[in-house]
Amino acid sequence: MSVALVGAGPGDPDLLTMKAARLLAEADIVVHDALVGDGVMAMIPEHVERIDVGKRVGRPIPQEMICTLLIELGQQDLRVVRLKGGDPFVFGRGGEEALALREAGVEYEIVPGITSSIAAPAAAGVPVTHRGVAAAFTVVTGHRRPGEPDIDWRSLAKVGGTIVILMGVTHRAAIAAELIAGGLPADTPVAAIRSATTDHEHVDRCDLAGLGAADVESPATIIVGAVAAFDLRDVTALSTIAS
Amino acid sequence: MSVALVGAGPGDPDLLTMKAARLLAEADIVVHDALVGDGVMAMIPEHVERIDVGKRVGRPIPQEMICTLLIELGQQDLRVVRLKGGDPFVFGRGGEEALALREAGVEYEIVPGITSSIAAPAAAGVPVTHRGVAAAFTVVTGHRRPGEPDIDWRSLAKVGGTIVILMGVTHRAAIAAELIAGGLPADTPVAAIRSATTDHEHVDRCDLAGLGAADVESPATIIVGAVAAFDLRDVTALSTIAS
Repeated sequence: MSVALVGAGPGDPDLLTMKAARLLAEADIVVHDALVGDGVMAMIPEHVERIDVGKRVGRPIPQEMICTLLIELGQQDLRVVRLKGGDPFVFGRGGEEALALREAGVEYEIVPGITSSIAAPAAAGVPVTHRGVAAAFTVVTGHRRPGEPDIDWRSLAKVGGTIVILMGVTHRAAIAAELIAGGLPADTPVAAIRSATTDHEHVDRCDLAGLGAADVESPATIIVGAVAAFDLRDVTALSTIAS
Repeated sequence: MSVALVGAGPGDPDLLTMKAARLLAEADIVVHDALVGDGVMAMIPEHVERIDVGKRVGRPIPQEMICTLLIELGQQDLRVVRLKGGDPFVFGRGGEEALALREAGVEYEIVPGITSSIAAPAAAGVPVTHRGVAAAFTVVTGHRRPGEPDIDWRSLAKVGGTIVILMGVTHRAAIAAELIAGGLPADTPVAAIRSATTDHEHVDRCDLAGLGAADVESPATIIVGAVAAFDLRDVTALSTIAS
């Protein structure tokens, strides 16, 4: 009948949108990524079929196969939810899937989700913008796929805002070197957050010069900029999170 | 008892998080901005007291007064929701309010919301990232408050990603000129969206050279970059939205 491309948010099922929760409750089938949190997966009723198309190490599923699957399911009399970590349009390849569905004449709907590029810093008490400190933030992928346009990291260093790097753990040393070459001070604060908004949340802090050598597990959201020194977590969060 | 700094999302009440909806339903008092959509306001139970601290033209309420109000309310036996359009940490001054509450010893909680910087483009069918087209996006305020750090627009033009400008309608001609001076082609696609995800949604499209002269009403979200030429809205959206 139709395919809903739905953002699952950063991990905490309480951060699903009302629309996403309703679509999950009414779905016939859910096609999901590996990055969707366990808590969100638990919101899917037991009788609903699930297909895991997560691109995990050792078992990559080509994007074209996912698009073909969505088209085939969308042409049947089924309520299909394509569930993605974070937001479908923030490195979620929602645009590619929407284009494929449109070309095949399958109706679709795009449902934004809370992006971890903002919610992961927030969970660590880091505001991506703050008056007098950061009047802009850039969200960038640190994992360059073949065919991706180049990012000019040295120009990015000169913009003057917060930098949020997704999928950047592997290349963090090279990225830090480029940002320093572009003019960011070596002691610019850095925070790296993994499993944001879940029970496994973990925050590491260092400075830009130390990022390459820092022990950061993938996947993590890396924040570079003066705001990364902030810790606005509330008392409740501080008492429950080991960081 | 405590203050929850809650993101109200872009306008559609269906895009509230489950947590935000629950906090509104259980609140004793809601302190809200002018930018919070009517549909979201309608989610607040009738008996709940509302205080409008919206900074509207001709009636600016100083931020310190809002902080003082939140502290006073937070020190009483009340469930206080501080409701902000979009996300509290994306130009929402949530960091300032959190700092003030912490200094006063008032417990608080930060609840992310769907930011209009991503959801407004999405509502216009524009993905802020897209494989092979944009591997980064920058969200920046076009309204420079006294004391704000400078944004280097010419460097921003060289980064290579999508640019999302909030509060940029007034200075759009000067911003466009700086981006072109920084190297962005004059024919770079631009989309301007207002009242995203509501019945009043409206999308204007032009190119960067034409942005200054384009008839754009404030407030609007302005997107600059190759993705602004996309229109991935689904059939349902296209049939209901006049643009």
